[in-house]
Amino acid sequence: MIRIVLVEPSHPGNIGAAARAMKNMALDELVLVRPKLFPHPEATARASGADDVLGKARVVGTLAAAIAGCGFIAATTSRHRDRNFRIVNAREAATRLVAEAARGAPVALLFGAERTGLTNQELEAAHALIRIPAHESYVSLNLAMAVQIMAYELFCARAVATPVQVPAVPLASAQDLALLYEHWAAVLEDIDFTDRTQSGTHLMARVRRLVQRAEPDVNEVNILRGFLTAVQKRRRPAGPRS
Amino acid sequence: MIRIVLVEPSHPGNIGAAARAMKNMALDELVLVRPKLFPHPEATARASGADDVLGKARVVGTLAAAIAGCGFIAATTSRHRDRNFRIVNAREAATRLVAEAARGAPVALLFGAERTGLTNQELEAAHALIRIPAHESYVSLNLAMAVQIMAYELFCARAVATPVQVPAVPLASAQDLALLYEHWAAVLEDIDFTDRTQSGTHLMARVRRLVQRAEPDVNEVNILRGFLTAVQKRRRPAGPRS
Repeated sequence: MIRIVLVEPSHPGNIGAAARAMKNMALDELVLVRPKLFPHPEATARASGADDVLGKARVVGTLAAAIAGCGFIAATTSRHRDRNFRIVNAREAATRLVAEAARGAPVALLFGAERTGLTNQELEAAHALIRIPAHESYVSLNLAMAVQIMAYELFCARAVATPVQVPAVPLASAQDLALLYEHWAAVLEDIDFTDRTQSGTHLMARVRRLVQRAEPDVNEVNILRGFLTAVQKRRRPAGPRS
Repeated sequence: MIRIVLVEPSHPGNIGAAARAMKNMALDELVLVRPKLFPHPEATARASGADDVLGKARVVGTLAAAIAGCGFIAATTSRHRDRNFRIVNAREAATRLVAEAARGAPVALLFGAERTGLTNQELEAAHALIRIPAHESYVSLNLAMAVQIMAYELFCARAVATPVQVPAVPLASAQDLALLYEHWAAVLEDIDFTDRTQSGTHLMARVRRLVQRAEPDVNEVNILRGFLTAVQKRRRPAGPRS
């Protein structure tokens, strides 16, 4: 199952056009995070023959709710925010999403708001960022167009779907990862290891991006959690810094 | 030169959206054959930052005028009208169009009206028909979406030799990583977190593989080393296990 997630879409026409693009390409699971206007007559009009996809679109309040239960997650971006993220192009991403979806857990493909795209924090929910190839002088695709290109690439990827080798152990879920980061942040606090990165980037953001890039499976998250727990057990009570 | 020809488009919004799709993908020659409404505010609105492409679009009265001077010509169709036509998919067509355009004469890519597509007579102007892969239960793409997919494929076909993007910060060296793993192993020892993985895989092997997959840069290795040092500073002196 491949889930299309639109985060805070502002134009209802784009929601309808995205639903049509999905149906053309045999996708039908649409999740909307805080849409500005939905349902809306313009969404219905642009959906054309895809009113069934639009009709069963789920509206949720948070990105976390939208990706609950998902394994592999990819997010589209048109900006150069690739620092510490894994970047793939549209075609590579489609191949990977199709292979991951075949493993069982749903996969998610995230699209940000028309003007702003996804925030850095939202991008950190993804294992990989997708850059749709475009002319450098005008890289900003219309939202529904971006959905169309990805849906098309997914359709092509499924048409040729040769079984890709995927690891036996499932990827850690978004919830598992959220708990891991919470735990890790608590340990950093415990051991007084706070932001000392030269770049000024928030320390936990660096840790999250590093871990997301590694695409940890459930066992690996358990190992890291065990390690963090062991660190907490052995620490001295907080005292003055040396 | 690759010319995009829209034959009798009825919705001005689609004309504007097509212009934007073209500009995103570095195309700029748009020809409109008997557009129902053009110029039109909705075309301008949907063109967004591509008003230059829209502004220099040529309006002509016949398909013959639109393709005058062209060499290779391809036409999109979603219907099964392949009798005696050469049929190619979107990607094959893009490769061919790019190769033909490099020979000198302009090439043309034709799109029909929203509801009806191109007539048989119009199709006969083409050397090949393009079928954009789509789900058989709903093959009819929105006109501008079809332009977007073809423009994207053309961009990909032209971009064969794009330099690969490499991150600004260098990857951590093998030595840096070896020191990181040594440090990490020492901390595991310090905090009595030894092999408890169910699989029996050696714990440090799991950590190493996880980190290697993330392809950490030098800054990230420094962050992890700092973290491990902080863990060591705060640990209690080793005592009997509880």
